[in-house]
Order: sequence, then structure tokens, then C-alpha cells
Amino acid sequence: MMQTPAILDQLAAIVGPSGLVTGDELRSRPAAWTRPSEPCAALALVRPRDTEETARVVKACAEAGVSIVPRGGATGLVDGILCENDQITLSTERMTGIAPVDPLSMTVVAGSGATVEAVQNAARAAGLFFPLDLGARGSATVGGTISTNAGGLRVLRYGMMREMVLGLEAVLADGTILSSMRPLIKNNTGLDLKQLFLGTEGTLGIVTQAVLRLRPEPAGYVTALVACPGVDDGARLLRAAQSAFQGRVSSFEGLWPDFYRLMTKPGRATPPLGPDYPFYAIIEVECVPEETDRFVDLLDRLMGEGTVLDAALASSEEQRQAMWRIRDRVENMNADGIERAFDVSVPLDRMDGYVRDALARMAAIPGCRAVVYGHIGDNNLHWNTTDLDAAGNEAIDAAIYAPLAELNGSVSAEHGIGLMKRSKLKLSRSPEEIATMRLVKRALDPDNRLNPGKVF
Amino acid sequence: MMQTPAILDQLAAIVGPSGLVTGDELRSRPAAWTRPSEPCAALALVRPRDTEETARVVKACAEAGVSIVPRGGATGLVDGILCENDQITLSTERMTGIAPVDPLSMTVVAGSGATVEAVQNAARAAGLFFPLDLGARGSATVGGTISTNAGGLRVLRYGMMREMVLGLEAVLADGTILSSMRPLIKNNTGLDLKQLFLGTEGTLGIVTQAVLRLRPEPAGYVTALVACPGVDDGARLLRAAQSAFQGRVSSFEGLWPDFYRLMTKPGRATPPLGPDYPFYAIIEVECVPEETDRFVDLLDRLMGEGTVLDAALASSEEQRQAMWRIRDRVENMNADGIERAFDVSVPLDRMDGYVRDALARMAAIPGCRAVVYGHIGDNNLHWNTTDLDAAGNEAIDAAIYAPLAELNGSVSAEHGIGLMKRSKLKLSRSPEEIATMRLVKRALDPDNRLNPGKVF
Ligand SMILES: Cc1cc2nc3c(=O)[nH]c(=O)nc-3n(C[C@H](O)[C@H](O)[C@H](O)COP(=O)(O)OP(=O)(O)OC[C@H]3O[C@@H](n4cnc5c(N)ncnc54)[C@H](O)[C@@H]3O)c2cc1C
Ligand SMILES: Cc1cc2nc3c(=O)[nH]c(=O)nc-3n(C[C@H](O)[C@H](O)[C@H](O)COP(=O)(O)OP(=O)(O)OC[C@H]3O[C@@H](n4cnc5c(N)ncnc54)[C@H](O)[C@@H]3O)c2cc1C
Repeated sequence: MMQTPAILDQLAAIVGPSGLVTGDELRSRPAAWTRPSEPCAALALVRPRDTEETARVVKACAEAGVSIVPRGGATGLVDGILCENDQITLSTERMTGIAPVDPLSMTVVAGSGATVEAVQNAARAAGLFFPLDLGARGSATVGGTISTNAGGLRVLRYGMMREMVLGLEAVLADGTILSSMRPLIKNNTGLDLKQLFLGTEGTLGIVTQAVLRLRPEPAGYVTALVACPGVDDGARLLRAAQSAFQGRVSSFEGLWPDFYRLMTKPGRATPPLGPDYPFYAIIEVECVPEETDRFVDLLDRLMGEGTVLDAALASSEEQRQAMWRIRDRVENMNADGIERAFDVSVPLDRMDGYVRDALARMAAIPGCRAVVYGHIGDNNLHWNTTDLDAAGNEAIDAAIYAPLAELNGSVSAEHGIGLMKRSKLKLSRSPEEIATMRLVKRALDPDNRLNPGKVF
Repeated sequence: MMQTPAILDQLAAIVGPSGLVTGDELRSRPAAWTRPSEPCAALALVRPRDTEETARVVKACAEAGVSIVPRGGATGLVDGILCENDQITLSTERMTGIAPVDPLSMTVVAGSGATVEAVQNAARAAGLFFPLDLGARGSATVGGTISTNAGGLRVLRYGMMREMVLGLEAVLADGTILSSMRPLIKNNTGLDLKQLFLGTEGTLGIVTQAVLRLRPEPAGYVTALVACPGVDDGARLLRAAQSAFQGRVSSFEGLWPDFYRLMTKPGRATPPLGPDYPFYAIIEVECVPEETDRFVDLLDRLMGEGTVLDAALASSEEQRQAMWRIRDRVENMNADGIERAFDVSVPLDRMDGYVRDALARMAAIPGCRAVVYGHIGDNNLHWNTTDLDAAGNEAIDAAIYAPLAELNGSVSAEHGIGLMKRSKLKLSRSPEEIATMRLVKRALDPDNRLNPGKVF
């Protein structure tokens, strides 16, 4: 207890008075995006200006025995940034620099506090494209999306954040600066150290900057809403389209009928297809306009074979946007009281059975409504359900999570574990896997000072 | 010394007599592909049939204090499988099983001893495609290509082995079986454990099987040899082609003039373009035949702008193969006595200066000839040079490797470090990076029993 003021003075000496946020100013910040009215509980928020300052902050905390919770845009969905009142939260909000894009190597160096949107804009200004995209783009940061290995809307074609990071710099638990900032696609010189920080939610180091890989801008899109006899037929359509367009399917979003009907209720999106098909998908291919005919031919052929039952092509950007609103208007689910969101993975060949089974289980829970949709090309399903009492929610959790272990699925496709899914980790990770993660954690952070208690 | 027979008996009890190779039979095996006349020096070669047997072998060795060198197809190029005579070499040659391809998820499970070619064939038989490809395909194994994170001919489009592994199983130094065999694209549940085994050359565990990601088969190719004013213009062409064909450039191989002239000498490949241009590239795009016109238009436009000086399109599969022979006939270099091969990475925007500088340095070394070419779209350059005396070779090494640290390059793009490049590691990795690799090594293999002395 007597240590508290000392460490704050030390931190202020490192980052300057404006770099340390405490008291009311700190309490006016929310604990997390998902907890808008809960104040940040930390002892203090410290915002270093660069890697050097970050390292000094971490060292001072290590010496004082104070633990650190890294904080980016605070948009994470699993309580990964929640703090105790004896912890320091280290915000990257002053490390937002973005260096000029290198147009030849198609790379850019960004500070960990730069937002995804700022990186997208910098890429666009150079005639290039940063493919990571998610609803939280205006707040989510480079460091946060690295630490959660964010996915989003274009994983099918471009991969997750893991595939977009060529190099990074991190501060380790003892204040060591680990700089691996090479802009190289190929570098087989032992353990790929950046992997230690991708998806580990700030438990192994604090990311301060990264070299990101950029891509050429998409040349255009063809987009359709299709109806199929089931998700397996959807998978066949996806595979056929990947073949015909050489892997340029950029989105393949499965919509089960209850979800489709909810989103196309009168006053919401206009339904391009009737409401009674067993399965819908939005498929989008990156291509030039001349290729539209080939896409239509493909759909025709698959209709002839019975893989596709019906299809509507977006014939303008306006229609394309309208189609996407069927997928994206999360507000519609909230308005219908289906507010609890889940993010799981299931191997594509097990998905049909899994969904049927979980829907049947939830139908037996009094008062439970559930809809399901997702990036099925990436194995990723989202469920939304009613929010019941504790027993009801537990039954819902069991219906959604419990089958995953057996099916080789995952309790978290995109969002991570944080605090929220800690008790579910063992459904997706064997005791040996968890023990190995702990070995690495202990090796890099023996005193458990970096985001302690998160993940496991 | 007295321990030796005991461990051999124990191993024979685990794997059966046919699973243990010693004496003349062992000495008749080469130490490595690069050392055909040097016999394997190990105390014994043990070849377990499955993961369970592998775990028991590792445990027995751990208890006896004997260290293990994993051995796949033995095609590695950096002496990663060299053994001391008190070490056991563990060969995966009996773990070659390949499960039926899952056509819906587009995945296949393969034993670590299965060859790359066998996986390619299994994929093709299911109408799919395993993109990893390299000259050693008939011998190189799944386990070996994972452990070296192999690259090869299609990295630009499909990534390295790292991008093709969804899950894997490994045996740790204490005999623990770490099974992470989920066929999932998305699984954000903490540290991605497979990364510990990708590119770490058998120092952290023995890979026993893997879930591999398959792709649709390419629909066709358009291939051209082009001449440009320099490598920077080549990079501009690459970027323009990636834009026009939405990332479907599958190869972009830079050939500097001395290399081009060597490969197109009379009696070798017929030169499709004159011998006096400053830079050549073979560019190949995956596309359908109807797209050829767009490709020709692109080249025409770039010729108008001066980015491309001349170009020859392969108008038949035969011509395409002939073009590739200009790149691939390594024998031609050997025939000209340019036998020492190097594999380095350089950021694309620094490549021009690096090559000029290294060529100038080598021009000053008496008796030295050097040619340069490579997968430049992946930052990857290959050098071939004359084999001089020790002092001459050291001067060549200095010309090629020494500038890399400053340029943020890598001393090994594809092949790894093994024993051969150990002394060069510090040019590509900072002391902090090497220390962090050691931390992880010590955490997973505290007694240094798995491939000790390799990498660092
Ligand atoms: C509207 C909305 C839509 C979303 N859509 C998607 C989606 O489509 N796909 C998807 O994958 N996710 C999505 N998310 C969640 C996603 O995880 C986050 O948006 C993002 O990845 C977190 O970035 P952040 O900067 O906000 O990190 P924070 O929330 O601040 O932190 C997230 C985690 O990373 C750690 N961390 C943050 N910065 C660092 C750093 N510099 N070094 C080390 N650790 C650090 C934190 O301690 C915490 O554990 C969405 C969230 C919202 C609110
Ligand atoms: C003609 C030729 C062309 C080549 N072309 C390329 C190329 O284009 N691109 C490229 O990247 N490489 C290339 N290589 C080298 C490449 O590294 C190897 O071909 C391949 O990756 C090694 O596989 P392998 O099964 O032969 O492994 P090995 O040579 O047997 O072993 C390689 C390393 O991996 C370890 N190891 C092997 N199996 C396991 C296992 N199951 N678990 C843990 N550790 C293991 C070994 O201990 C060793 O350190 C080429 C080699 C040759 C001979």
C-alpha cells in the first residue's frame, strides 16, 4: 500500500505529468466498450509516447511489483482490459504514428496506438489496401488487433491480422525491448518471435509498433444473395466459386432462415429472396466487371445441379449495400431482444449437424430464442440469443459451447479469451496445450506482471 | 559409455527390432542430401510407427540423457540433421499415412513422414491442390517442411508452409504429446502453439502429424519473360500485375543479366529476349485463358511507360516450360563452376543497391564469379558463386551477408539456420531476439535434448 504513491511519481517522471491519468479523469473512462457505464478501475493510466518510455514504464512497474494491463482502443469483446485497482493500465493512445507507406515493398510501419482506420486511410492514400476490416475500425488499434489476432470481414481472402504483420516490436515483462521490425515476407532464422504476441492478449509483451503488409486495392466486386438446400450445399458453392475465381471469394456469409427472416422483417431490409429457404448465403467475389457473366454462369450451373435453389445478384453498389445490411444490422437483433452474442468455430463438415443440434437444445430452453449466421468460409459462426436468467443462460452456453470439444471446434473464433471465456478455454485446449502455454508465459513473464489472469 | 547398449535395448523394445537401424545399415545412409558420401554418424536411427511410439522413444531418451536429432527426408540444406555419435536420430519414415481428403473443409491430415509429393497427389486425386512445391518434393516431408517452414515456388500467392498448416501434433522433449489437430482457420484461444514448431528445425518438439489446408486447383496460367530497366521497375510491374489480377501473380522471378546469359548460353535454353537488358523477370499469373488479352494490354501499357523494355509471352505449355528452364536448370551453374549457393532476403526497396554493392565487392575478389536471381516478390535472392579457398569464400560471405544487418535483411530466407548458418544468425537477429528464442527453448527443452546445437 505504501508503494502506491512512489510508483506513480516514478511513472510521472518517465512520461511527464500529462502522460499519467488518475482520479476523476481516469474514472470517466469506461472499463471497456462493452461496459460503458463502468469506470476504469486501475490505479492509474499511463500513456508513454514511444517504445523507450514504454520500456521504462514496464521496468519501473516490474521493480515496484505492480502489474500492467495493456489498453488499445478498448473495443475488445472479452474483458481483456479489465483492471484491478492495484494495477496500472498502459494505454498506447500516444503511439499513433504512421510512417510513409513504402509503395515498392507494399508495407507500412505503424505505432501500436494507430487505429485500423488510420492504417486503411494511409494505405488508400498510397493507392494500396490494408485488408483488415471490422466494425470497430475507428477505435480498434494496431496493437489491439495484433494482441487479439483480429479477423473481421475479409479473412477468407486475406487472412487474419496474423497474416498482415511482417514484423513487430514489443516490450517484455522485464522492460527488454524486443525489436523484430524487418519488412520481410521470408525470414527463416529460428522461432518467428512475432507469433508470441499475436493473439496472446497482452500476456507476453506490450506491442509498440509493427510493420504491416499492404495489398493492391480490389478492382471491384460481384455480390449475390443465394438460397441453398443447406450449409453443405453452401460449402459446395463456395468451393466452386473459389475454383472458378481462383480464390478471390472475399466474403461468404451464411445466414440461417430465422436470422434472415429477422433481418428482413417489414421496415428492415427488403428481402431479395423468399423467406422459406433452408439456408442463405451472401457471396462476394473480387473481380473486374467483365467477369460478372462467368459468375452468373456459375450460379446457373449450380442451380441446374440443385446446389443453389435461388439467387439474386446485386446490380448496383446500392443493391450491394442493401444486401450487406441484411448481414450487418446487429441493431435488429437487439431490437428483438436477442442480445447475447457468441463467436465460435466449427469445422465446415460438422457445421450442419452442430447447428441443428444446438438449435434443438435451445428450443427446449423456456423463453430462449436463438439465431445463427457467420463467416462460414472461415469456420466461424455467430450466435445471438435471448438474455435469460442465470440458469437459462447457462443452459444456452451449454448448448452452444459444450459440443465444440467433441467436434474439434473453438470457443473463440475471433475475439479471444480475456476474462470472459476463461472457464471455456478447456473446451478448446487440452491440458497439455494449456500447460505448454503456461510454460511460455512463465518463461517470458515469470512474475506474472503482464495482464495477469487473462486467458488462463 | 555403459549406457549405450541399455538405451538401444529400450528403444528396440518400443519400436521393434525393425524400427531400430544401426551398424552398416545405418552407415550406408548419408549424413544429409548435401553430404552424399558422408555416413550418418548417429548411435542409432529409430523409426517409430506413430505418435505414441515417438513419445515413448523421446521419454526413454530423456531418461537416459541421450539427445535426439529429428530426421525427415534429409533434403534440408543447412546441416540441420547432422548427428554426433552419441545421439539418436529419429526418422519419421514410417509415419507416412495420409487420411482421406476432406473435400468440404478442403483439408487433409498427413503423417510427418509423408512426402510433399504424396500430399500433392492426394490433394489432386480429390480435385484439390496443395500449393507447397519445391525441387525436393519427392523426398522432403511434411515434418521437415514444417520444421524448416519451407517456401518454394508459389510463396508469392500461397505463402510458406506456415500458411498451410491449420493444426499439428508434436512430441515435446519430456515425451508429452501436444496435440493441436483442429482443422480450423479461426481459433483465437491464446498462443498459437503450432508456431512453436514452424521453422524451429526440431529444437522444440518432434512433429508427428499435421492438418494441412488445401486450395482449389489453378485454372490455368499466363507466363511471360520481360526485360526492365532495373529491379525497381520489376517491382512496379509486379505491383501493377497484382492490381490488375487481384493478387493472382503466382511467381515473379528476377534474373540479373549474368544469370540470364549463363542460363541461355548456346546449347542451354533458347533466349526469348536479347542478352543485354539490365534486368529480366519471369512473371506467371494464375488465370483463365480469356484473361490473356488483359495481361498483354498491361504489358503494352507498361512498355509505353518505360517500365517494361521488352517481353515474350509463352504461347504454349511447351514454351512455358522452356521459359522456366531458364530459371530452374541449376546444373548449368554447376557446369560453369558457380557452385556455392546462398539464400538471403532483402527488402524490395533496398534490393537494387544491395545487389550492385555486393556485385562490386565480389568483382574485387580474385577468381570470384557470382550470379544472382530469385523470388524477388518475396524479398528472396539466391546467389551462386565460385568456390574459392577459405579466404576467398570468407570474402564472398562477407560481400553477401555483411550488408544484410544494416538493410534489415535476412541471412536465411527459406532454408533455415541449422549448423551451417549459426555464425550468421546474429546478422539477422538482435541479442534480445536470440535471448528470447533461448528463453523459449529452455522452457520447452530445459535439458537441451532436441536437436541440440542447431540454430544457436
Ligand atoms: C463493433 C465491434 C465490432 C467488432 N468486430 C470484430 C470483428 O469483426 N472481428 C474481430 O476479430 N473482432 C471484432 N471486434 C473485437 C476486436 O477484438 C477488437 O475490436 C480489436 O481487435 C481490439 O482492438 P483494441 O485496440 O480495441 O484493443 P483493446 O480492446 O484495447 O484490447 C484488446 C486486448 O489486447 C490487449 N492489448 C491492446 N493493445 C495492446 C498492445 N499494444 N500490446 C499488447 N496487448 C495489447 C489488451 O490488454 C486486451 O487484452 C469488434 C468489436 C466491436 C466493438
Ligand atoms: C533439390 C532441393 C530443392 C530445394 N528447394 C527448396 C525450396 O525451393 N524452398 C525451400 O524452402 N527449401 C528448399 N529445399 C530445402 C528444404 O528445407 C527441404 O527440402 C525441406 O524443407 C526439408 O524437408 P525434409 O523432410 O527433407 O527435412 P530434413 O532435411 O530431414 O530436416 C530438416 C530439418 O527439420 C528437422 N525435422 C525434420 N523432420 C522433423 C519432424 N518431424 N519434427 C521436427 N523436426 C524435424 C530436422 O531435424 C532438420 O533440422 C530444397 C532442397 C533440395 C535438396
